[in-house]
Order: sequence, then structure tokens, then C-alpha cells
Amino acid sequence: MELQAQWIVGFLDGQGSFHIGIKKNKELQTGFQILPEFVIVQHFRNIKVLYALKTFFGCGVVRSNSSNGQFYAYKVRDFSQLRDLILPFFEKHKLKTIKRVQFEKFRDVLLVMEKKEHLTELGLLRIREIKKFLDAIKDGDYSVS
Amino acid sequence: MELQAQWIVGFLDGQGSFHIGIKKNKELQTGFQILPEFVIVQHFRNIKVLYALKTFFGCGVVRSNSSNGQFYAYKVRDFSQLRDLILPFFEKHKLKTIKRVQFEKFRDVLLVMEKKEHLTELGLLRIREIKKFLDAIKDGDYSVS
Repeated sequence: MELQAQWIVGFLDGQGSFHIGIKKNKELQTGFQILPEFVIVQHFRNIKVLYALKTFFGCGVVRSNSSNGQFYAYKVRDFSQLRDLILPFFEKHKLKTIKRVQFEKFRDVLLVMEKKEHLTELGLLRIREIKKFLDAIKDGDYSVS
Repeated sequence: MELQAQWIVGFLDGQGSFHIGIKKNKELQTGFQILPEFVIVQHFRNIKVLYALKTFFGCGVVRSNSSNGQFYAYKVRDFSQLRDLILPFFEKHKLKTIKRVQFEKFRDVLLVMEKKEHLTELGLLRIREIKKFLDAIKDGDYSVS
């Protein structure tokens, strides 16, 4: 299955998400690890689309996403792959829904990480604020103009 | 906002649906009216996308789809518009998920209606069977090869 860039953007506008995880990790100075993730969940019926996305982006994994095997996810978690393969794609092919704002905030977090600022208290605070904003979008508090 | 065909197909693969309504109507010989509908529901934040779809297809309406005004829908219900504007688009630009099967069944119903066969008991029975199949896909009974 071959995908065109605009199909991927449309599909993402409908289905994909840009997620920021913040996980306790005592080995780090701030006590927390930042886990950015690009993820698309689909019913197993559409698993071919997930593999086509993996082929298109040239990174990431397809994994079961539910205990009953009904849902699968295409996920990219590696920082370098997010920075070098996922970001440039969505900078070139703009999302058209509220997801564009989510993407821009996600990119902000990657930029903070690129500068290693997420290893400082101040950087962590900034990421927490961005995450709060992202969660507010999900909950419907925010309207895009 | 300008939309490209492949973005629309990707967005539909994620979000849109092809629906067949069967409604009691004593004025018709079979006692039932067939109401095919192409519909895309979005949060009000993304209402611009719905208007862009309306502009792109040159038909349909954008209406509130929930009592609290949180959701809006782009809908096409007119038979001629479905036949002449919606069908040719998805015949040219193929869907990539299970939605392609839904579309093909939806098209089958429109073809039955085109021949006025839905006004007969046999035609109605055929449409009921297609609808049952469409509902099974929604419920996850069907896997696309």
C-alpha cells in the first residue's frame, strides 16, 4: 500500500496524536524523564495502513495496543527519529485541524530537549506547562481561530 | 482553507461515514423510506474544515450535531448530489481503510435507488441486507483482507 503525503496529513488530522509523557526517574537530576511520542491507533482491520505509515516514515514500530488484540498502534518514540523524520514532514505538510496546534507544542518540547534544557528544573517546568496546554486542548477548553 | 483530494480521503478514512437510514413512511408502497447519508462529525473547533469540505464538494450542509453545540456535522443527503458529486470522488480517490468497503456497500444502495428498485419489497430486502453488513463492519465483525 502506497501512501501520499496529503493522505497521511488528512488521516492524522482525524486519528493521530502527539503525546508528551512525564515519568519518574530517580537517576535523572530533575527526577523526571520526558517521553515524547507520535502515535496512531487503529482497529486491527486497518493494520495495513499502520505498516504503510511505518514504511513511509522509515521509522517506528507497529504493536498491539489492547489486551484483546483488537487495536494496534504505530508509534515513534526515538528522539532522533522524531526530530529528523516526523517533525520535517509536518512542517512541510501542514495539518488543518486543531492538531496543528498540538503538533507545534509537541515540536516546542522537542526543541527544549534538543538543547538539553529538559534536564534542568526550569526546562522541566516549561515542558509541564506545554503538557498542561496540550491536555486542555484534548479536553476541549481551547478553540482555534 | 483549500483542501487537496488526498487530504480529504485521509480525513475520511479517519472520520467520515456512509450511513443508510431506513424510516417508516406510510405513503410509500413498501412502508419504508431509504435515507442514504454521507456525514462527517467534528468538534466545533474544527468547523472550518467542515465548511472547506462543503466548498470542495459543492453540496451539503454544515449543522450543529449535539444539543450542547460542541459538535458539528457536514452532511449530504440529497440523492442526486450523492450520486453525481460524492460517488465519483471516492471512485476516483480510493479510501485505504475498511471505509472503502463501507463506501462500496453505500454505492450499491444508491445503485438500487437509481433503478427505483428500493420502491419494491425485493429492493428493500436487499438494502436491509446491505445495511446489516454495514452495521456488522461498524461492530468489528468483519476483517478486510
